[in-house]
Amino acid sequence: MATADIQVPSHHKAIVYDKPGEISTKIETIETPKPGVGEVLINLTHSGVCHSDQAVMCNRWAWLPAPTQAGQVGGHEGVGTVVAFGDGAEASGLKLGQRVGIKWMASACLNCLACMSGRDACCPSGKISGFYTPGTFQQYALGPANYVTPIPDGLSSEMAAPLLCGGVTVYAGLKKTLAQPGDTIVIPGAGGGLGHLAVQIGKGMGYRIIAIDNGDKEDFVRGLGAEEFFDITKYSKDKEGNKKLADDVKAASSEGLGAAGVVMCTASNAAYAQALGFLKFGGTLVCVGIPEGEPVPIGGADPASMLVQELRIVGSAVGNRKDAIETMKMAARGIVKTQFTVEPMSKLTSTFEAMDKMQLKGRVVIDLSKE
Amino acid sequence: MATADIQVPSHHKAIVYDKPGEISTKIETIETPKPGVGEVLINLTHSGVCHSDQAVMCNRWAWLPAPTQAGQVGGHEGVGTVVAFGDGAEASGLKLGQRVGIKWMASACLNCLACMSGRDACCPSGKISGFYTPGTFQQYALGPANYVTPIPDGLSSEMAAPLLCGGVTVYAGLKKTLAQPGDTIVIPGAGGGLGHLAVQIGKGMGYRIIAIDNGDKEDFVRGLGAEEFFDITKYSKDKEGNKKLADDVKAASSEGLGAAGVVMCTASNAAYAQALGFLKFGGTLVCVGIPEGEPVPIGGADPASMLVQELRIVGSAVGNRKDAIETMKMAARGIVKTQFTVEPMSKLTSTFEAMDKMQLKGRVVIDLSKE
Amino acid sequence: MATADIQVPSHHKAIVYDKPGEISTKIETIETPKPGVGEVLINLTHSGVCHSDQAVMCNRWAWLPAPTQAGQVGGHEGVGTVVAFGDGAEASGLKLGQRVGIKWMASACLNCLACMSGRDACCPSGKISGFYTPGTFQQYALGPANYVTPIPDGLSSEMAAPLLCGGVTVYAGLKKTLAQPGDTIVIPGAGGGLGHLAVQIGKGMGYRIIAIDNGDKEDFVRGLGAEEFFDITKYSKDKEGNKKLADDVKAASSEGLGAAGVVMCTASNAAYAQALGFLKFGGTLVCVGIPEGEPVPIGGADPASMLVQELRIVGSAVGNRKDAIETMKMAARGIVKTQFTVEPMSKLTSTFEAMDKMQLKGRVVIDLSKE
Amino acid sequence: MATADIQVPSHHKAIVYDKPGEISTKIETIETPKPGVGEVLINLTHSGVCHSDQAVMCNRWAWLPAPTQAGQVGGHEGVGTVVAFGDGAEASGLKLGQRVGIKWMASACLNCLACMSGRDACCPSGKISGFYTPGTFQQYALGPANYVTPIPDGLSSEMAAPLLCGGVTVYAGLKKTLAQPGDTIVIPGAGGGLGHLAVQIGKGMGYRIIAIDNGDKEDFVRGLGAEEFFDITKYSKDKEGNKKLADDVKAASSEGLGAAGVVMCTASNAAYAQALGFLKFGGTLVCVGIPEGEPVPIGGADPASMLVQELRIVGSAVGNRKDAIETMKMAARGIVKTQFTVEPMSKLTSTFEAMDKMQLKGRVVIDLSKE
Repeated sequence: MATADIQVPSHHKAIVYDKPGEISTKIETIETPKPGVGEVLINLTHSGVCHSDQAVMCNRWAWLPAPTQAGQVGGHEGVGTVVAFGDGAEASGLKLGQRVGIKWMASACLNCLACMSGRDACCPSGKISGFYTPGTFQQYALGPANYVTPIPDGLSSEMAAPLLCGGVTVYAGLKKTLAQPGDTIVIPGAGGGLGHLAVQIGKGMGYRIIAIDNGDKEDFVRGLGAEEFFDITKYSKDKEGNKKLADDVKAASSEGLGAAGVVMCTASNAAYAQALGFLKFGGTLVCVGIPEGEPVPIGGADPASMLVQELRIVGSAVGNRKDAIETMKMAARGIVKTQFTVEPMSKLTSTFEAMDKMQLKGRVVIDLSKE
Repeated sequence: MATADIQVPSHHKAIVYDKPGEISTKIETIETPKPGVGEVLINLTHSGVCHSDQAVMCNRWAWLPAPTQAGQVGGHEGVGTVVAFGDGAEASGLKLGQRVGIKWMASACLNCLACMSGRDACCPSGKISGFYTPGTFQQYALGPANYVTPIPDGLSSEMAAPLLCGGVTVYAGLKKTLAQPGDTIVIPGAGGGLGHLAVQIGKGMGYRIIAIDNGDKEDFVRGLGAEEFFDITKYSKDKEGNKKLADDVKAASSEGLGAAGVVMCTASNAAYAQALGFLKFGGTLVCVGIPEGEPVPIGGADPASMLVQELRIVGSAVGNRKDAIETMKMAARGIVKTQFTVEPMSKLTSTFEAMDKMQLKGRVVIDLSKE
Repeated sequence: MATADIQVPSHHKAIVYDKPGEISTKIETIETPKPGVGEVLINLTHSGVCHSDQAVMCNRWAWLPAPTQAGQVGGHEGVGTVVAFGDGAEASGLKLGQRVGIKWMASACLNCLACMSGRDACCPSGKISGFYTPGTFQQYALGPANYVTPIPDGLSSEMAAPLLCGGVTVYAGLKKTLAQPGDTIVIPGAGGGLGHLAVQIGKGMGYRIIAIDNGDKEDFVRGLGAEEFFDITKYSKDKEGNKKLADDVKAASSEGLGAAGVVMCTASNAAYAQALGFLKFGGTLVCVGIPEGEPVPIGGADPASMLVQELRIVGSAVGNRKDAIETMKMAARGIVKTQFTVEPMSKLTSTFEAMDKMQLKGRVVIDLSKE
Repeated sequence: MATADIQVPSHHKAIVYDKPGEISTKIETIETPKPGVGEVLINLTHSGVCHSDQAVMCNRWAWLPAPTQAGQVGGHEGVGTVVAFGDGAEASGLKLGQRVGIKWMASACLNCLACMSGRDACCPSGKISGFYTPGTFQQYALGPANYVTPIPDGLSSEMAAPLLCGGVTVYAGLKKTLAQPGDTIVIPGAGGGLGHLAVQIGKGMGYRIIAIDNGDKEDFVRGLGAEEFFDITKYSKDKEGNKKLADDVKAASSEGLGAAGVVMCTASNAAYAQALGFLKFGGTLVCVGIPEGEPVPIGGADPASMLVQELRIVGSAVGNRKDAIETMKMAARGIVKTQFTVEPMSKLTSTFEAMDKMQLKGRVVIDLSKE
């Protein structure tokens, strides 16, 4: 480890999943690791709390390769300062004391064809933060110097933390629509954790946003820049309701032809089954939200329907390093803000409980300096 | 109508669907129409016979808006010579006696946003040849001067006819993979009407082709340029068989990562359910073949699966005017050949019967100068 | 000609170039033409006045194939209503009384490979309005029904007129940078006729705009949305001054690396010679303004300089039909406004005189209903 | 340094530039370095000899930042086997004994925006092999484990060596034309070191190749796959000759419209001044060869000419890591071969002398196991 002027303790506080499968966390004192080759040690000050953390903690995602282990430190939206360099890590250009972020992908090899194609999330050696590696619900964590994301001046750490996950994710998803400025994009779940970021970032990219969510979110979502809003509760949950909603969305889009893209910021199979109906010829449905439970093919995604209007469906995992940098820049320019509440470490369990009951408004950011 | 040096008869022979819903055709003598504004009259010499004609004749496609009418002249792969110009049609630059082709899309408005986006097939005013308009199973037909496809010298009319449909269609589908030269493309149904064209055109575009079909087609398909061949009959028709086939295809692809694209040249839901398994990260499944019967969502196309490898599914209808010109040029250069037998008009019904029993080898082209 | 309910006079007023080579125009009464096949007759109410009109009138562009003829009706930014249809023109979907615009390209064949590639301006049969065809400085003009641009509701005719040329042109140029939202674009000549539109449209496309112009335009240009402004008069007109300006522009761009694109809205060779210096790796210089006089290669465009930073230079003529529609939509949404004064027909000569002395502020739009 | 089973000597033979500015090399015995963090030590067996080496040795390129130092080990087309790992280097997945190649860019940081954009050559920390770092004219050299290029089985080391530079370079250049399969590409200098690779790779990408070179290279170049050949010596070296050549090239291209791209595999300003004339609307001139001497703007690259046909000029330095991998795969498939002679280390000076007199046929590869 290279010499560092910054004092690092031998031990620090971390929040672990003590009973994976249930909503339960516990603060423990663990040994502070030393950075390996190419790594930096980061003194984390903030970590966002995400639905994905809950899915990992509770083993709710069938597609993850193994159940979560007891003692796992969760979290994947961490911001802090570099306090020590492993061998070779200084070549990254990072400086001691510089603020950096840890993302859903804690690391990717940067040397495989997936990484070279800008598809970090598909790297076979990639590690998910808070699942394969100790995550960001702790005061000190390691990260590859070439993979952590520098946080620009003028962007607060608590604001940056949730954007490292949700912001980057929806930005990468919006890009995959291949839409151009002036095109209409539909955001189902526009008032939620991902959706409220997608509305703002999409607007900053020059898109016209049609938002869909429960009616009580209308004012909030319009305030973020959505041009149109549809209250999902006003449509019946059947074929006829879907058709009516599709007709209304199309009528509200440019020329009444339908949207150029839909970025799915909800995670229900029922919402997916509506989405292809919103699109105009050549339009793109981007899968971002992942429904829980058994996988169900996207409703309406039969070959004839795809072909007649030349539709596209694209899966978009989290963004890559460059997407993360660009998202942080947008945030520093004020294009996108996230709504959040700051809580001490001890409030993580109750945060997950509120999340489970869908009682959270905006994101929760844990202040890791407070127990 | 502009003056023409070429003699046009008052009546000509046409083959009509006399009992839509069944395989049945009848030769009739009908009045030869005069070209309207912007149209040319074409003395057709050849028309290919396509599975889509059969689907239209027999009302097998649920997605078409209405049943076929008795007396409909079918056909959408016609080649002949320009014999008369409607008002304004000479501005197209076509010459009397020039060979041109009529495609699946008999016309598109060229003035809507779909047409301006190169998505002729999505034009709301577009007409399907042999369904909305009198088709190419006749000796004279009309076509918009700006929409018929010039046939280059050095490409015979009988060779060109089937390429106007199948060739253009698979070329447009191959383009939609967004793959680059050297990438691996999988062609399910490689020995069939669409597939054998896709293998050749794909190879001409610089792709490495993995072919899938029944084992008795292996020699034929390898002879067209496929690098690898998998005999579909050797795999069980269940989840395990699909997994085994996917593993084998991946192992045969570059780096064993999977293919950059799959262009579906078969029309079975079972084949679609295998296809996503062939792809590497970011790979694209292009829907070309349309299964008959009730629409079924593509097997495996659930959000989580799409997302984890960032897969794409794209619907590709027939190509546009430019695709057709490019396909004809490829054919004139010898990149792609189609296997065909030439038959007189009276053999159309028996051709459809053989097609229905899957007894056709290659395409049948009707010589419209022979009754 | 199809029947029309709208009364069309036998003659109308037109402004002609009576002494090509000089600044001189004259109002004449000429016969109102009848629409040919595929054409509409338009009762023009407004025409913008553009520097290109002046260049045509005065024979200042060496690249035009022939000198302007006496009696030529100039103008290429016309808006009016459809008052009659030629044969076949109603198939376009236009309605009697609908507002449409005539652009720099009065027509393009829509049937050649250039047109099919979306490069209308490169159509060998294309006609430039007010040069090859009678232009828009008159009360009635013909246009191809498939080529005139519908003007959306909510956009006034006087506002639309200049945007049909300058707006479409800079929009097409901005697209050719291939930059993405959040990237920095430099607009030299930001306060001028093209530049002030480029600043607004570029901002609407999500770009960060660095503007360059004379210092007295700073407030105006910043008010349009430019993030940074450089006063060109503060830099010496030599290699050292160019270097200093390039350094300052780079320092103001994202990460200090330079801009992703430069869209040249001035027409001086000296300005072109500065522009490559503003770019970051892979950046694009888009040529829009055309210097008068003998052609001079772009300063700094030597192979080594292009290669070391992998720069790109792209020529961008006026946009195509789709670009025009998209620009009008942006204007209808209020993304871009043009500053203009409305003058009667009799003021055209004095307008050109003021233009020649660089005394015009904003654009002049001729009200063709007033003599 | 990690443990290695492979024996590494303390010293090895290297060829140095002993009198930079002149053609002169000398074999010396130097200390074998130990791999640093993230590096591998490579036992080089072959190194190609390139014109760029000569330019570096003789200080002929004005754009390089400093003169070459005496004692510099040149060379940038090296192939050998991995014999030792520095700390952390094994994470790259490379194996002891695996064959890898060193390219023009010996290293790039992989962590800056240029690298993240796939523009390794623009990395500010990038090192040019044989200029900033000890090159490949020696028996042992270091390389970053994440930056050396794996050589696939079935591709010999002597064949691979020159392709690591010229092959990758022209492949990256061909990509930058943005042409599609079936398009015409012109290769000036088609019989030369870069050109003969461009002809083969371009053909493998599905392009139709028009070759330009001296008449005595015609058979050779046609044998590589060029469809057309023009003997440059038959055209006068003035404006009229350039016009005649441009007309002939256009007539030979698809539809007589001109080429979609020109990839400059010569390095003369006179050749550059011809090239824009070969292009059709929207065509792209890719700068690859760098003329020696004072930089001269590309002839004909004035704004009006660029704009009227919407031409593009793009600078293309060497390709990136992914381009290198793809080029090696093409070579392993037999798409591209290079003509070469193998010589011992002692023949390097005479090789440069022959190169200087333009007497070399094909490439020379130094066998580093032979002194």
